[in-house]
Amino acid sequence: MTGSGTAPREGDNRPRSARTSYNPQMKSLTRHLEYRIEKRMEFRNITHDVEALVRESGIREGLCLVNAMHITASVFINDDEPGLHEDYKRWLEELAPHDPSRYRHNRTGEDNGDAHHKRQIMGREVVVAVTDGKLDFGPWEQIFYGEFDGRRPKRVLVKIIGE
Amino acid sequence: MTGSGTAPREGDNRPRSARTSYNPQMKSLTRHLEYRIEKRMEFRNITHDVEALVRESGIREGLCLVNAMHITASVFINDDEPGLHEDYKRWLEELAPHDPSRYRHNRTGEDNGDAHHKRQIMGREVVVAVTDGKLDFGPWEQIFYGEFDGRRPKRVLVKIIGE
Amino acid sequence: MTGSGTAPREGDNRPRSARTSYNPQMKSLTRHLEYRIEKRMEFRNITHDVEALVRESGIREGLCLVNAMHITASVFINDDEPGLHEDYKRWLEELAPHDPSRYRHNRTGEDNGDAHHKRQIMGREVVVAVTDGKLDFGPWEQIFYGEFDGRRPKRVLVKIIGE
Repeated sequence: MTGSGTAPREGDNRPRSARTSYNPQMKSLTRHLEYRIEKRMEFRNITHDVEALVRESGIREGLCLVNAMHITASVFINDDEPGLHEDYKRWLEELAPHDPSRYRHNRTGEDNGDAHHKRQIMGREVVVAVTDGKLDFGPWEQIFYGEFDGRRPKRVLVKIIGE
Repeated sequence: MTGSGTAPREGDNRPRSARTSYNPQMKSLTRHLEYRIEKRMEFRNITHDVEALVRESGIREGLCLVNAMHITASVFINDDEPGLHEDYKRWLEELAPHDPSRYRHNRTGEDNGDAHHKRQIMGREVVVAVTDGKLDFGPWEQIFYGEFDGRRPKRVLVKIIGE
Repeated sequence: MTGSGTAPREGDNRPRSARTSYNPQMKSLTRHLEYRIEKRMEFRNITHDVEALVRESGIREGLCLVNAMHITASVFINDDEPGLHEDYKRWLEELAPHDPSRYRHNRTGEDNGDAHHKRQIMGREVVVAVTDGKLDFGPWEQIFYGEFDGRRPKRVLVKIIGE
């Protein structure tokens, strides 16, 4: 967890759409998770939420896609270390400063031009192998939702396909 | 659309290879789309082309991979807003200026060293969930082909697998 | 190959885990490859290793995921051109300098804060289409393992699913 001071994670995961296919040929599970981050920029560890869906799917061998459904947010894999997250925030602010006057996009009435840039650095999605019914992770891999224009609910899609 | 002044999109989509598998266990569809961008750097919305292939595949639940087949181009998902695209171009030019003298790669006779860098920022590929026979998108997600060394035909691969 | 002066690649590929499923509905193959890079930052062409696993899998149509299992390393697709790789190293060093004093992460006793940033630029993973039993590549696409904190063994996961 990132110490973001937001409401407990449990309260945020209201499934919006759920679909589990138990076709004998191929299984799939689809879920839209919802997160609300109270800061403009923050990272939240969502590994447990994804792991729970892998278990629920019953899939033993397959692929798990996790993507931000919003274009000012990211899903990425890295370390759950608060100092690193502070480093990322400072670095992203250097690469794409918030200053709304810098972005033509903000002439549309938005002030989140920077968030569209930060998201490109950190990425939209991850694809993770499911092996023996579990996320096939290296020792430090954790899945994060990266918010760059927070203070409103946003969704993350999880889709698992396999057998 | 990006207002790029290029030829109509319809004329650009000459399939190079098509393969649809109607194996009862798992379906797949593979298609190479071709685009020719007349500017060095430009973004083109290819969402409709990918949606048409999802319909053609008949796949209801699965994953759709869309990737640039060239290493000086990107496929990415973001907003179809011309101001944002101008912001991206200026930002990428700051992060990896075109100036051919900056790149050892250009000693091979190329002048596109910058394009290999810009493509790493914007990414090679996206993987999109197919749910209920449609791309499972958030409200503003659109798929773009990002060209960083244009003025010649280049290909984008679409592969959809599922059931 | 990147001319890195490291030990021969053949010696590095000790499979850690192997799983091939010959379920009639869907096939999958999972393999953890191991690489040891003797420099802090270097890129190694691992295309042949991945191609060998595609052949071994027997999968004709599907998707191949290749990802770094460590969070200070990347898997990416670009050109096998030594000048370009030198350009990438200089560029990544500009975007995220090694200097350990710059990163709060290094207060944990690490000196690899920069590597966690470089990896985000170059990406964690690639997903490649498998068509007709082969990696469905454009003319110059090659798969690289990107090391940003080397001098110890690290793993790359390859997972192929399809039919």
